[in-house]
This record gives sequence, C-alpha cells and structure tokens, in this order.
Amino acid sequence: MNSSSHAFPTLGILGGGQLGRMTAMAAIRMGLHVRFLAPKPAGPMQGLGENIVADWTDPEVLRRFAEGCAAITVESEWAPADRLTEVLPQGVALWPALETLRLIRDKGVQKKTLADAGLPLPDFTLCPTLDAARAAAASYGYPVLLKKYRGSYDGYGNITVQDEDDLKAGWEELADDDGLLVEAFVPFVRELAVLVARRPDGAHVVYPVSYTEQRDHRCHAVVVPADIRPEVEQEARRVGLAAVEAVGGVGLTAVELFELEDGRVLVNELAPRPHNTGHYSIEGCYTSQFENHVRAVLGWPLGDPGLREPVSVMVNILGHREGEAEPRGLTDALAIAGVAVHLYGKSEVRSNRKMGHVTAGGADPAEVRRRAEEAAGFIHL
Amino acid sequence: MNSSSHAFPTLGILGGGQLGRMTAMAAIRMGLHVRFLAPKPAGPMQGLGENIVADWTDPEVLRRFAEGCAAITVESEWAPADRLTEVLPQGVALWPALETLRLIRDKGVQKKTLADAGLPLPDFTLCPTLDAARAAAASYGYPVLLKKYRGSYDGYGNITVQDEDDLKAGWEELADDDGLLVEAFVPFVRELAVLVARRPDGAHVVYPVSYTEQRDHRCHAVVVPADIRPEVEQEARRVGLAAVEAVGGVGLTAVELFELEDGRVLVNELAPRPHNTGHYSIEGCYTSQFENHVRAVLGWPLGDPGLREPVSVMVNILGHREGEAEPRGLTDALAIAGVAVHLYGKSEVRSNRKMGHVTAGGADPAEVRRRAEEAAGFIHL
Repeated sequence: MNSSSHAFPTLGILGGGQLGRMTAMAAIRMGLHVRFLAPKPAGPMQGLGENIVADWTDPEVLRRFAEGCAAITVESEWAPADRLTEVLPQGVALWPALETLRLIRDKGVQKKTLADAGLPLPDFTLCPTLDAARAAAASYGYPVLLKKYRGSYDGYGNITVQDEDDLKAGWEELADDDGLLVEAFVPFVRELAVLVARRPDGAHVVYPVSYTEQRDHRCHAVVVPADIRPEVEQEARRVGLAAVEAVGGVGLTAVELFELEDGRVLVNELAPRPHNTGHYSIEGCYTSQFENHVRAVLGWPLGDPGLREPVSVMVNILGHREGEAEPRGLTDALAIAGVAVHLYGKSEVRSNRKMGHVTAGGADPAEVRRRAEEAAGFIHL
Repeated sequence: MNSSSHAFPTLGILGGGQLGRMTAMAAIRMGLHVRFLAPKPAGPMQGLGENIVADWTDPEVLRRFAEGCAAITVESEWAPADRLTEVLPQGVALWPALETLRLIRDKGVQKKTLADAGLPLPDFTLCPTLDAARAAAASYGYPVLLKKYRGSYDGYGNITVQDEDDLKAGWEELADDDGLLVEAFVPFVRELAVLVARRPDGAHVVYPVSYTEQRDHRCHAVVVPADIRPEVEQEARRVGLAAVEAVGGVGLTAVELFELEDGRVLVNELAPRPHNTGHYSIEGCYTSQFENHVRAVLGWPLGDPGLREPVSVMVNILGHREGEAEPRGLTDALAIAGVAVHLYGKSEVRSNRKMGHVTAGGADPAEVRRRAEEAAGFIHL
C-alpha cells in the first residue's frame, strides 16, 4: 500500500494489542489511515489498517514505519519509543513524548515526579538495599507494598508484605540492581480512575471519575460515574489533571487513584495511553477515550467526554485457560439487551489474559451492572 | 491470510462501499473476521479485514471468496448474488436470499409483491408501452412519477411529469424494453423510514421510525424519533415489518414510507441491506443497524434497537466537486460538541457522492439538529 496515495492523514501505532485495535477503529471511522508496527503478528491489529510485522528496534524498520505518518503513538509505555525518536522524520510527531514515557515507565521516577509537583501520593521510599527497605517499612509500619520500578502491572511485580520476613522474601523475589520501591499501605475505601485527553498545546478534557473494581489485582469492572461525593469527584478530577500535567502527558493518560475514608484522593499510578478503565467510553461517552486520544495526538479539537446515558458499566472478559481461543457463550451474551460485546481477536488464550470486554448502559446502576456481569460471564474463550 | 487459522467466524461481504465498511466495523468489534470481495479497489473497505479485488462474476473468484465464510451478505442489491448462489459451498449461507434480492431489485416486481401482500402503496401500473403510460397517467391525474424498473436511486431513473408532453419526453429518456413503472403522485406530508433486522427463523426487531428529509431527491438528514403521532408510528412499524416479511428479508431491510395527511402510511420502496436512514444508529441506538445486520445473517440473537438518547440526528456529507478527496473543515466539525464524524475513506470525490456523515445526539431536537447540520456543513472533501 502506497501511503503517498492517501488523501487522509496516517496515524502510526507502535504496538498491535487491543488498545491499538480500538484506537485504530476510532481513527478509521474519522477517515484516517492507520499503520501498525509490532514485533510479531498480533490478532488485535489484524484486519485493521496496514500491519508491519518486523524487528521494531531496527532503525530502518522504524524509519519506514514513521515515513508519511501525520503522528505516531504508542499503545504501551514499553514500546521502543527511544529508538523511534532517534529516526523520526522531520514533521512527524510522537505522542506521548519520550520524556513523558520516561517519567512514567520507572515507578520510582514517576512517584518522585508527582511528589515534586505537590500531588498527594501514598508515602514511598526508593530503596537501593534491603536495609533501606527495612528502615522504610519500619517507619511506615506493616503492611507495606514492594514494587518493582519497571515492568510491574496487574499484580505482577508487586507484593504486599506483612512483616520483616515477608519483606526479605519479597525483596529476594523482586529486587533489581537498583532495588525496589517501598510504599506505605493505604487503607483506601475505593479505587477510582480519571482519564485525561490532552493536546500538545495543553488543551484538555477530563472524563467522569470512574470506580474500578479490582479482583485478584486485576481490573474486573468499571462503573461510571463512581458513586462518590461531589467533593471527592472534584478532588479526583483536580488531582488527575494535575498528575497528567506534571508528566506532560499528551494523548490519553489514565490516572489510577485511591479514595480515602476522609475524602482525600491519592495517586496510585499513571498510564500514558488509553486504559482499561476507559473502555466503557466507546458506547458510554459522546467521544470515546480512543477517539480523543487520536484527536489529541493530531492536535485536533477534543470531543465531549460526557456520558450519553446516566450509567455505564464495563466488565472484562479474561482468559481462564491456555490454548487456542474459541468463542463460546457469545450468543448467550448477545441475547442480553443493551450490551456491547468487544472481542479483541486474540487467537491464543492465556489465564487472565484480557480477551475482550462487555459494556452496558442505562439508568439504574445495579441493573446495568447485573446485565454487564451476566453477559461477560457467559463468554469463554 | 489463511482463513482456516481463524478461531472466529468469517463474514463475507460482497461489495466494498460504505455500507460494507460500517458492517465490517461492527463485525470486527465482536471478534469476527471480515472478507470483502469487490470488482475494483474501493476506499471504504481498505484497511478493514481481508480485501479480495477480482472479477466478482467469475465463479472461481466467488468460490474462493465464499470458502470458509460462516455467512455472506451483500452491500448492494446489485451485487452478483445470482452467480454467487451457483457456487456457494455447503453450509455457507447468503443473506438476504437471492429470492429476496430478486423481489426487490425490480421495482415492478417489488411493488406487485407488496401489493399482493395487502400492503398500502401509491397506485402504480406496470406500463410496457407509452400508450399504457398515458392511460395510467390519465386515470391517476397529473402529476405522475415515471420510474425505471431497475437501477434507479437517489433521484436517478425517476422523473415527475406534469403533463402528457412531459410524459412522452420522460418515457423516451427512461424507458427500457419492458417499459416503465407509472406511479400516482402522493401528496405526502413527510417521508419516514423503518428498519427491520430479521433472522432466517423470522425473529426480528424494528427500529424507531425515522423522519428522512430529502433535498434534491437525496437523503439530506434523518431525525429519530420522527415527530409523528403515536398511531402513525404504530402504523409505520406495522407496515414496515409486513413489507419485510412479504419479501422474506433477512439481515437488515430498510423500508421507506410516505406519511399522508390523514395518518395513512404507504410503502415507497425497500432496500435489502443497511441503509443511509439507519446510520444514526451507530451512536444513537444500543445496537446499530450494522451490528444487527451481522447478528441477523449469522442467526445470532438480535440486539436492542432502542435509542440511547432521546434524539439522534444524522446529516450526510456529500461531494460537491469532482477530483481527489481531501478532507477540509474536519477539525472545525470536530470542534462542535457531541457529534460523531464518519468519513468513508473514498479517495475520489464526485458531485453528490456520499462521502461521510455526521451524527449528533441529545435531548432537544432543534438543538441536536443544529449541531449536526453545523458539523456536516463544515466538512468539504
């Protein structure tokens, strides 16, 4: 496919997973061309736009990928944005910027950046040694959390330790050369999330605050709006936006938050990309997180992040086995009124792998939740 | 791409235009694979699923296209469904069935089928000769409409004639070997449309009745729900469903209607596929016409056709010149809150060619309409 023959701008996406898939669908709807680069074939990107499968650390591959793109985005903070930046052709933008990715990738750097900007966070200490970790834990009191600086997500690379023996075992399991992050345990009442779409010029929109229900350290369901007091909603939005501004986020940035009993809101962590907690927005909002991500990285006007309906609920569809995916229960799920089923086209299922999601909308939170749970529960891949 | 490696069903689409494009996007979201067959490269299908560009009247091409599909649909009643039917592999369904397409393609056959089923229609006569047309016109009184049996749409192939001289000129311009259809002019107050999604087993859902505003014989805007009396709504739904059942429609069938002063509803014509009057449903309804088309042709449970919001308005984006498409005004359109812009990826613009559409939603019909018109008005390709 000769990109020069396109009358419409081309959006480059580094990564071929479900976030890229849903970003591409929003872009294609607006007439954009989409070009993926991924290191191996990936089901979610297949059948969408132009697929380049090649060594994505190879400067020549990256140069070819970037050529002719109006803008490039990453669907993971771990995509080789560093390598890409070195070969970016004149006039092709990468958003979020490499600097933002660097501030977010390393959890120590991320937390320090946010703390320096005056944002409320759980207490934390960057601990280069086990002794330093012991001292930090003693000062916070047990339990504390141990977190790897890099590569931790969905319960991987994080441990809650109850005492000094636990701490030592956890240290031995997780610590890298530069040690670990030790974080005070926060007795939160709820986990919340705020999504911010922000343009290179700083213009932004903030999505309604969502309640994110975790099961086994993984996002199980998202309910929007969160059932929180107006002053908590306001504080969550303030903190979310300030956190995104602190890292210079451009495109969609997700801010995971803890709500405390006293109404305070602490930043848990940031993701510099569309996020699982925003999937509901495809049906739930006037402008989805994916569409606003596309608009933001192109510097286009941002769309209305408001809810189309009073309540929107998203429930994840996770893998429960290992093997070749095979959709079962899909028609049972579709028999439930008013649910939208999204399957990501992953041909391999793994335990706890995100295979799809279901979104339901309506007026009554309990009823909407019930429908979303029921539909998601039917589907087994 | 080796279709046998797909864990998910493949939907075949005969035709590469915007109806196929939007059908494909609904299918892909549910994890389906999509395979297009079109006789020449078409912008709307590009970058979506598997594209086969080949002589689509060639049995070998059609056989290869059909191989491995769970179901096949057409995005135009003029696609070579006859040829395809001759080579359909065992177990691969074509919906709508060839018989339905035959009943709809020829307007004479269509009207006779509907009249025989007792449906209310404008008076019409199949006129093999100019004399027969003169006699029919005299009995209805002028003006009357002349319509080609085959291939007329959007004002092409139709003429309103005011007197016998007009009739003669129109006849000479339009008549085929088997003549023309002469139809009594109906002093309708509004054009309405009803969309029906129907499965092979007859299960069906009926969309809210929409008001379709024509300009220069082309659909300019669609407003849902139509501002009509409840008894007219009820009658429109009854007539719409009965018309679809009369032709055995499977998948999405659109029924264009005339509303008369006295509340009666007459069938204007049918389209055996997703339809311009249903594009609003992508954002406006819980389940879009495209998704329900996919569900119906696969025999899956049909989704809720209800409106997510009180009002949905769609405005078409037509071409105003000839040449290479170039999106202008897109960012102005996107600056208007709560509108969804759809561009179809057509690289060539022609005067009056459907290039895209805009949908807006909200509570106040006049305000929603204003936003949709304003956004669509900004975009020039």
